[in-house]
Amino acid sequence: MTLIKRLLEGDKRACARLISHVENNVQGINEKLKEIYPKSGGAYVIGITGPPGSGKSTLTDKLVKLFRKEGKKIGVIAVDPTSPFTGGSILGDRIRMNDLSNDSGVFIRSMGARGHLGGLSDSTSAAITILDVYGCEYIFLETVGVGQSEVEVMKSADTTVMVMVPGLGDDIQAIKAGIMEIGDVFAINKADLDGAKRTKREIDMMLDFSEEGWRPPVTLVSALRDENIDVLRDEILEHYNYLKDNELYHVERKNNVKSEIMSLVVKKVKNKIIGNEENHQILNELSEKVAIREENPYTASEVIMALLKK
Amino acid sequence: MTLIKRLLEGDKRACARLISHVENNVQGINEKLKEIYPKSGGAYVIGITGPPGSGKSTLTDKLVKLFRKEGKKIGVIAVDPTSPFTGGSILGDRIRMNDLSNDSGVFIRSMGARGHLGGLSDSTSAAITILDVYGCEYIFLETVGVGQSEVEVMKSADTTVMVMVPGLGDDIQAIKAGIMEIGDVFAINKADLDGAKRTKREIDMMLDFSEEGWRPPVTLVSALRDENIDVLRDEILEHYNYLKDNELYHVERKNNVKSEIMSLVVKKVKNKIIGNEENHQILNELSEKVAIREENPYTASEVIMALLKK
Repeated sequence: MTLIKRLLEGDKRACARLISHVENNVQGINEKLKEIYPKSGGAYVIGITGPPGSGKSTLTDKLVKLFRKEGKKIGVIAVDPTSPFTGGSILGDRIRMNDLSNDSGVFIRSMGARGHLGGLSDSTSAAITILDVYGCEYIFLETVGVGQSEVEVMKSADTTVMVMVPGLGDDIQAIKAGIMEIGDVFAINKADLDGAKRTKREIDMMLDFSEEGWRPPVTLVSALRDENIDVLRDEILEHYNYLKDNELYHVERKNNVKSEIMSLVVKKVKNKIIGNEENHQILNELSEKVAIREENPYTASEVIMALLKK
Repeated sequence: MTLIKRLLEGDKRACARLISHVENNVQGINEKLKEIYPKSGGAYVIGITGPPGSGKSTLTDKLVKLFRKEGKKIGVIAVDPTSPFTGGSILGDRIRMNDLSNDSGVFIRSMGARGHLGGLSDSTSAAITILDVYGCEYIFLETVGVGQSEVEVMKSADTTVMVMVPGLGDDIQAIKAGIMEIGDVFAINKADLDGAKRTKREIDMMLDFSEEGWRPPVTLVSALRDENIDVLRDEILEHYNYLKDNELYHVERKNNVKSEIMSLVVKKVKNKIIGNEENHQILNELSEKVAIREENPYTASEVIMALLKK
């Protein structure tokens, strides 16, 4: 039986295999993705992000358990944008999800930024499509960090949960500025720590100044003590309903798709230059000239652009 | 007098103006960059990166003061990749550098990821070129976060200092995996905190397993208490000498240039699609079709690629 047929029948190993094909860019994977894409779109994607040390994995773990109580099939993609060689094993925190791994209704996968050509967001988008067709009703997309590539990855999510903790120091200012754009629901984890309420107040204040429309709720939770996880779940679902009721669900998905297409284009462009021996040689020679200041990067980029027309 | 002439004469305001032109993508800035580029290349670029809350700004502050004692002109670029609207004011921690701002030999600038087309690394590369031509001998490039876009930004640095702190939780695993690639010198800041020595040991262990060549030193420092900053400075300079002695300086610069060219190409590609009314319309229509599953993103990206040939 073909991999795709097995995937459609809910075969977990076929699902894992296809995601590996995406990660390793196995020949023919694009055609397979084209084939299954029309069958996707049913899953609801929940992003979980936040700075290192905020306890995202534990929180995801607890949320997954709560959603599982309704008997829904769930996918978890843990993204590690910092590492080009993560295949899952390095993410030690995934081990905590061990009891979930034994649950046949939960599919867990860690993904790293392998290679330099492939955008991480392309791979995660493709993995979401695969998990969606596999039959997951909810897909959790968890990522470490607060940088631009995480923002890219989070574009695949319908609802994004921003996990914060007290005591992030001065960088909180920079983080806050960045998260305002992407957080739909805020969770202040480790609510028992000093300063948790203050952090909530600060974020609330910033959100009060933001635009009209959905006002992200800010909730104190403790993933470790299992406190307020149900409140968080309700808020996630409330955001989902808000999107549906205001016909924003489709608008958001369209925007996500647009980013995905552009990201695939960028990948193709890089491949056409670096993946092509002759073009790569030209790039190398130009780089050499620029390094010794015989050429400048701006003119060099124009030369490379001309190669794309061929 | 032209901006460029004023820059070449060491006019601080001309320097600031040109960097603003880069950030705002003012018409003609590319030609100006082409003109000054041959005069650049003399500055030594030191990257300072690490997770939120690791105290990078304070550490940069202390390092700058130490380098200033030698009377060298210094530039500081504080990058905030998470925020599209940072112009400097949001980065409150910059305020701490106030006493440095009054030093005419130090130029400080915060840069955010404005707009969606411009790569942040392009802007920081251009700002480095400007500061270089302005006459800075050392340029500090400081960035919040540990994601892929920070890795991109750090490609402009000759030597990258990775700032770590104890107590980052489980995410330390993921961070460590990511930083192994980019850290040339490691500083465990807040060395007085519990677990500092353990963090040093863990990082040392990981580095012991890494490839041959330069073995990054790992030093316990305290930026706040001004402890071991001189040791850190010596290690930075040692790495610089290592690059010079092994003819790696040029190799590294060539690789950085290569990334910069490709990044400029990607910017041009995005501009050709999203910045062109007709092409943007095609992208929007395709996105709509993909969102309702009448098309798939893989075929759509092929259609967009064809537009680039026109």
